[in-house]
Amino acid sequence: MKVAIMGYGTIGSGVAKVLDTNKDIISERLGEAIEIKYILDLRDFPDDPHADCFVKDYMDIVKDEEIKLVVETMGGVEPAFTFVKAMLESGKSVTTSNKALVADKGAELMKVAKDHDVNFVFEAAVGGGIPIIRTITACLTGDVIEEIAAICNGTTNYMLTNMEQYGSDYAEILAEAQALGYAEKDPTADVEGYDSCRKIAILTSLVTGKNVDFNDIPTEGISKISATDFKYAKSLGRSIKLIARSVKVGDTYACRVAPYMVKPDNMLYHVSGVMNAVSLKGNMLGESMYYGAGAGALPTASAVVGDLVFLARNVSKHVRIGWANEKIELASPEEERFRYFVRTSALQSNIENEFENAEYASLDLDDEVGFITPEMSESEFNERIAALGGIISVIRLY
Amino acid sequence: MKVAIMGYGTIGSGVAKVLDTNKDIISERLGEAIEIKYILDLRDFPDDPHADCFVKDYMDIVKDEEIKLVVETMGGVEPAFTFVKAMLESGKSVTTSNKALVADKGAELMKVAKDHDVNFVFEAAVGGGIPIIRTITACLTGDVIEEIAAICNGTTNYMLTNMEQYGSDYAEILAEAQALGYAEKDPTADVEGYDSCRKIAILTSLVTGKNVDFNDIPTEGISKISATDFKYAKSLGRSIKLIARSVKVGDTYACRVAPYMVKPDNMLYHVSGVMNAVSLKGNMLGESMYYGAGAGALPTASAVVGDLVFLARNVSKHVRIGWANEKIELASPEEERFRYFVRTSALQSNIENEFENAEYASLDLDDEVGFITPEMSESEFNERIAALGGIISVIRLY
Repeated sequence: MKVAIMGYGTIGSGVAKVLDTNKDIISERLGEAIEIKYILDLRDFPDDPHADCFVKDYMDIVKDEEIKLVVETMGGVEPAFTFVKAMLESGKSVTTSNKALVADKGAELMKVAKDHDVNFVFEAAVGGGIPIIRTITACLTGDVIEEIAAICNGTTNYMLTNMEQYGSDYAEILAEAQALGYAEKDPTADVEGYDSCRKIAILTSLVTGKNVDFNDIPTEGISKISATDFKYAKSLGRSIKLIARSVKVGDTYACRVAPYMVKPDNMLYHVSGVMNAVSLKGNMLGESMYYGAGAGALPTASAVVGDLVFLARNVSKHVRIGWANEKIELASPEEERFRYFVRTSALQSNIENEFENAEYASLDLDDEVGFITPEMSESEFNERIAALGGIISVIRLY
Repeated sequence: MKVAIMGYGTIGSGVAKVLDTNKDIISERLGEAIEIKYILDLRDFPDDPHADCFVKDYMDIVKDEEIKLVVETMGGVEPAFTFVKAMLESGKSVTTSNKALVADKGAELMKVAKDHDVNFVFEAAVGGGIPIIRTITACLTGDVIEEIAAICNGTTNYMLTNMEQYGSDYAEILAEAQALGYAEKDPTADVEGYDSCRKIAILTSLVTGKNVDFNDIPTEGISKISATDFKYAKSLGRSIKLIARSVKVGDTYACRVAPYMVKPDNMLYHVSGVMNAVSLKGNMLGESMYYGAGAGALPTASAVVGDLVFLARNVSKHVRIGWANEKIELASPEEERFRYFVRTSALQSNIENEFENAEYASLDLDDEVGFITPEMSESEFNERIAALGGIISVIRLY
C-alpha cells in the first residue's frame, strides 16, 4: 500500500517516523505494508532517509494511480483544500491533521469523498493523539450524544495549570510559555479560544450529522483570568479550565467556548498541563472520557497513521459517517443557563437586591466581593450584572 | 439490515432498547435501518414489544439467509460457543458481550470468522460501554502499546472507593455492596480478580496479536485489603485500586492483576465507584486513558449496538485485526520489579537488615510498622520478606 505525504513539517515528518519505527506491527495488523512513495514539499531534504521520495508538484501524486492513500499535513486552508480535493476526485483517500481545513471545508470534502467512493478522515485534527473522531464516528454510533465537554487546547491548559500551581498572573505565565515554546509568539488563536472553537465545531458537526459554522459559537479565551480568580476558585474547591462545550437542546445544540470553574468530581478537573481530554455523554452510555496528548509531533502523527490503517482497510469504499453539508442552526447562547461566579466592587446590599440567594466566597480582599449566583439564563444574568455594576470578572460554573 | 439477538436477559433486552430508542440516528449514520428479526430465548416474553420475534431453536436463525448480523448476550462458554460458531460458519457476523467466551475461545472464533469472510467483535466484553476494543484494534493501530493498566471491574472499584471514603473494613463493604446489588451473592469472580484477569488477557491478546491464556496471569483480588491499609495509603497520599496490568518486556508482556497503591498524578487514582478506565501507553502516542461505565444494561448494550454498526458497514468482508490463534509465552512474573508497601510486626532493626533505604509510613500503631521498599524484583522481595517474617500485608506501588 503506497502513500503520499503532503507537507513535511513537524507532523508530516512525524508520520514518516511512525511508519518507519512501527513498520512491522503495522504490517501485521493490516496484512500488508504501508510504504511512502511521495513526499510533497517545496523545501529540499537531501539527508532525509526518504530523500528520493520528494516531489514539488502535487499533480505528480494525482496522476499516479498506484497511490490510493494521501496524508495532508501542510496546514492552512489553501492550497491544502485544492490539493486534497484533487486527490479525492482522482480516487485517493485522504487523512489530514489540519483543523482549519476540516472546520472550514470538512462537510464539502466529505461530499467529494462520497461522490468518488473514497474516504476523507481527520483523527489528528481534534485532540491530537486522542482517538476522539473515530470514537464518535465508529464507536458510539448507537448513542445520541447529549453533551461534549473538551479541554482541547494544550497551550491554554498548560498556562492555567501553571497559574494555579504557582499563583502567577496571566502575563507572566504567557511569557514563560512562549519562552518554552508551548505558546506561539502571536498566541491569539490559542489564548482567545479560537483553536478550541474550531475543534468543538468539528466535534459537534460529527455528533449532529450537520455542519456547524464555527463563527456561530460564542468564544471567550483565558486572557482575562487572573491569579486572584484562581485564589477564589481554590477557596471554592474548584479549578479553572478552558472548556469547549456543546449541549443538546431539543433538536439542536448550544455551543460555547469559555473558562469554567470545575469541581474535582468532574474528571476534567484532573486534566493538567499540555494534556487534553474530551468527555462525551451518551443517552445510553452515560458519561465517558477520552484523555491523552493533544499535540506534539509523534502523538499527532500516531493519529494520522491510525487513519492510514483505516483508509487501507476501506480502499474504494466510502464509509458513511453522516456529516451532511447542511448548516445547523445552533440554540441561542442567550438561553443557556449557568451558575456564575462574579467579582464586583458593588456593595453587598446591592448584590442582595440583584441576586437573591447568592453564595459569598470570602477572600477578605479590600474593595471587592466574590459570589456565586443561583442558576439563570445568560440574558437574565447579563441584565442583572449591568444593573449591579462594578464587575471585575465573571466565570461560569460547570 | 436484519439482526438476531441470542439471549434476552439484562444485556440482550438492553440491546433491543437501544435499537428502538435511537432507531432514527442509527439509520442516519448507517444509511439503513437495523431491525430485530429474531430473539433466541427459552423463556417466553408475551408482553414484550418484540414478542413476535422469539424463537427457541438457534437453527431457525442459522438457516435464515436474510440474517447477516447476530448478537450473543447469553453469557458462559456453552452453548454460546456452539451457537456463535454456527452463525459465523453460515456467513453471519457476530458481536458478543460475553467475556468468558472471548477469553476462552476468542482467537478460535476469530479464525472461523476469517475463514468465512465475516467478523467476530466484542466491544462490550471489556470495559462495558468504554470503546476500548475498537480503540486498540481500529484507532491506535500505528502504535506499539507498551503498557495497559485497567480498572475494569466495577464491583471491586465500588467497594474500594467506599472503604476509602468511610474507613470501613472489607467484610462490611462487601455485605453492603451485596445488599445494593453491586456485588453478587457469590462474589468470588469479582473480588478475587478473576473477572479482571479475563479482561486483561483479552486486551493483551489484541495488543500482542497472539493468544494470552488467562491461566498464566498471576491474580490477586481485594479480599485481604483492610481499613488499616487505607489509613496507611492516605498517610502516603495514595489510594488503593485493583489494577489489571500488562507491561511490554522485550518481545513479550508481563501481566498481573493485583491491588496497587496509586498516586494522584496517575489518572486511575481519580476513577471512583462503579466507573472503569483503561490507560494505554503507546510508543508514539504516549499516555492515554479511556473512562466510562464498565457495566450496566444500557452502557453495555450501547457498545453492542456500536459493534452492530461496525458489522453492518463490513458485511461479507473480514476486517483483519491481527489476533492469531498462537499462544504467547508471557514474561516471568518473578522478574517484574516494583516498590512494595509492607506492614509487619518485625522489629525495625530487622527491617533495616533486610531492606536498606526503607521509607517508613508511621501511623503509630501498636505491634506493627509500615514501610516502602526500594524497587526490586518479585523474587528478591519474596526472599526478603520470608527472612523478615511477621508480614501483615503487602501492596505493590504504581
